Amino acid sequence: MRKTISDLHAELVRNNLVAWTAGNVSGRVPGEDLFVIKPSGVSYDELSPATMVVCDLDGNLVEGAHSPSSDTAAHAYVYRNLPEVGGVVHTHSTYATAWAARGEAVPCVLTAMADEFGGEIPVGPFALIGDDSIGQGIVETLKGHRSPAVLMRSHGVFTIGRDPKAAVKAAVMCEDVAHTVHIARQLGEPLKIAQDDVDRLYDRYQNVYGQRSPR
Amino acid sequence: MRKTISDLHAELVRNNLVAWTAGNVSGRVPGEDLFVIKPSGVSYDELSPATMVVCDLDGNLVEGAHSPSSDTAAHAYVYRNLPEVGGVVHTHSTYATAWAARGEAVPCVLTAMADEFGGEIPVGPFALIGDDSIGQGIVETLKGHRSPAVLMRSHGVFTIGRDPKAAVKAAVMCEDVAHTVHIARQLGEPLKIAQDDVDRLYDRYQNVYGQRSPR
Amino acid sequence: MRKTISDLHAELVRNNLVAWTAGNVSGRVPGEDLFVIKPSGVSYDELSPATMVVCDLDGNLVEGAHSPSSDTAAHAYVYRNLPEVGGVVHTHSTYATAWAARGEAVPCVLTAMADEFGGEIPVGPFALIGDDSIGQGIVETLKGHRSPAVLMRSHGVFTIGRDPKAAVKAAVMCEDVAHTVHIARQLGEPLKIAQDDVDRLYDRYQNVYGQRSPR
Amino acid sequence: MRKTISDLHAELVRNNLVAWTAGNVSGRVPGEDLFVIKPSGVSYDELSPATMVVCDLDGNLVEGAHSPSSDTAAHAYVYRNLPEVGGVVHTHSTYATAWAARGEAVPCVLTAMADEFGGEIPVGPFALIGDDSIGQGIVETLKGHRSPAVLMRSHGVFTIGRDPKAAVKAAVMCEDVAHTVHIARQLGEPLKIAQDDVDRLYDRYQNVYGQRSPR
Repeated sequence: MRKTISDLHAELVRNNLVAWTAGNVSGRVPGEDLFVIKPSGVSYDELSPATMVVCDLDGNLVEGAHSPSSDTAAHAYVYRNLPEVGGVVHTHSTYATAWAARGEAVPCVLTAMADEFGGEIPVGPFALIGDDSIGQGIVETLKGHRSPAVLMRSHGVFTIGRDPKAAVKAAVMCEDVAHTVHIARQLGEPLKIAQDDVDRLYDRYQNVYGQRSPR
Repeated sequence: MRKTISDLHAELVRNNLVAWTAGNVSGRVPGEDLFVIKPSGVSYDELSPATMVVCDLDGNLVEGAHSPSSDTAAHAYVYRNLPEVGGVVHTHSTYATAWAARGEAVPCVLTAMADEFGGEIPVGPFALIGDDSIGQGIVETLKGHRSPAVLMRSHGVFTIGRDPKAAVKAAVMCEDVAHTVHIARQLGEPLKIAQDDVDRLYDRYQNVYGQRSPR
Repeated sequence: MRKTISDLHAELVRNNLVAWTAGNVSGRVPGEDLFVIKPSGVSYDELSPATMVVCDLDGNLVEGAHSPSSDTAAHAYVYRNLPEVGGVVHTHSTYATAWAARGEAVPCVLTAMADEFGGEIPVGPFALIGDDSIGQGIVETLKGHRSPAVLMRSHGVFTIGRDPKAAVKAAVMCEDVAHTVHIARQLGEPLKIAQDDVDRLYDRYQNVYGQRSPR
Repeated sequence: MRKTISDLHAELVRNNLVAWTAGNVSGRVPGEDLFVIKPSGVSYDELSPATMVVCDLDGNLVEGAHSPSSDTAAHAYVYRNLPEVGGVVHTHSTYATAWAARGEAVPCVLTAMADEFGGEIPVGPFALIGDDSIGQGIVETLKGHRSPAVLMRSHGVFTIGRDPKAAVKAAVMCEDVAHTVHIARQLGEPLKIAQDDVDRLYDRYQNVYGQRSPR
């Protein structure tokens, strides 16, 4: 799991989701009340399986030479409250964060969004770092939604998945569709996709391809 | 042909046409009713000649350890109905897909578009995955057009070529001109190119340079 | 220090902050009235610890085979007037420079901006190269601000830090938030963050994480 | 010269100025009525000193196994009519071409533009490929301007330099400022720079730094 999490951070870089050290991936340790997460303030080049840290579900450091990511409390809250979640990702990716800055959900106007998100990508509340506010905002928003991604107001994106790779995929796809829909909206209104068609696309993608998201 | 198709997927990545696994290239096997296509859900890093799959023109798997791309039915329909086509590419490249989301053709306002597309890049219908709808939409739209690229409404791009490399070139050029015309339109209206000049540019490019597209 | 400065120029390239040779990093030599800076007109590929040049705090060349960067006078002025500054960076990064071209501060509408900049990123005056005007503009603007970055009108960005790496981080984050806020503003108005919350985020980031900027 | 020209094509790729094979660099052979140019339709990966072709100043092939670039006539016209020019570059780089598509000059609102271009980047006429029209348009436009770059209407960019590297630098800087000014204009009007200040910046850059462009 340390190696998986270390390697997945390279995907954040490769997909242009992060600047400097501002993004992190975590993964639940199967069968234990623990998760592996990025150490705080360490650059992506210096990450390795050995530098990853292990926390319990209250976000306390259990193993590791560095402090855990400053977003650890939010990850821990998600693992405590959504037992089916095996991976969490946080980024400030540009286009998704721009929607978050306006407090606006990304409307479902692409078949790829219907497949992956099953509808719009919702907005969560403004929440300060330092206690459980961010974690609560994530969980309350995603519980009522098919979407594995939430745009936290004025902040950035959190995604969840049955495992860390699925959460990273959701983060990549979230930025991709946030980008495309932004570009589409710059020159007019994107055409709507009928709710029936959204449902059909989502059902097929989640069931036929066996890539069921945690809810 | 397996190696050609495997290598051409790297061009999709290099030209920033794809996020995660959302894009595919196929090529007709010369002299046979078969085509080679990307396996479903495999990341671009893991592709190799050996992982490519071979299908018949009804889209049935003939050879290969993985399932074929979920877009196989659309590729198969094109090969069945356009015998001069030797390669098909599908992407959700950002700018082309943004035009598709608005259901708007890219107007021919660049000499490079006149050369390569001979006019506007047309929009095809909204079509659900799962039967021949997407393939029909592609074929019906491209039959009346010089363009080797079609913007499928709310979905993405399909391009065709006399061989897979020509279809990849069309996908790269489609995104490039969709991008440039989008940027031009953000600050005003691009100037028109007279139809006569479009025709002259297209004729010269297709004939003098011997890069005749399949129609 | 030569090696540090040489290596940090690679970060400017990697983070897409510079075109051709238009950007530079300098660092104060600890305990001496000297700083190390990029040589003028040398491409980033050819930089090495040996090609870096050393100047005194009036910007005169002390050591090195090349002329110092044409922006040396501005760096020198900052070191003379802000003794707590250990590193200075200058770029023409696209989005930050676009705000500078309109003479408009980047408003603080992202939690990451509150963390790093403690409020808006301010605009400095128009100033010609050739004397102390640019240096004065930087120092006068940043003295009254939490921000380690200033957008010099019609020109580009200067950032400062307690050491060169902190100044490079500020340059990377400045472009990142200038980009995100630009994108947000294209489709509406970003939501405000209350001043109290900006203050709380800034205090926490600067104190809890020990990444206090020089002022 | 073959090696120089081959290597400089890699700069076009590295600076994202070209898609597929749509861009070319040429260089006059010192002391002879010849120039070296890219072969037609060869991908940038396959370029090498040996694949470059040599033409006389009427654009006829003198040496080389491939046909010369389809833009050879335009390069040749420039060398015949501007004896001080030692290098020519042509691209369809996105932002510069977007200004060209609207037939709009890039206004001089950045100090880096005053340095490098001495004012606006002008627009040349619409011209069809196939005779001297493009070359004439380039020469007529650039003769009355400080700018080493011209935006050919509905087409793309041509730049000139005292040598091929200077022409490549102008192509890189042209796209960079076309990009920044575009972004600035999206959210309002960039502030003007007084003509006096433009002149002072240009004089200093061209004379103090000895980077005099060919006119």
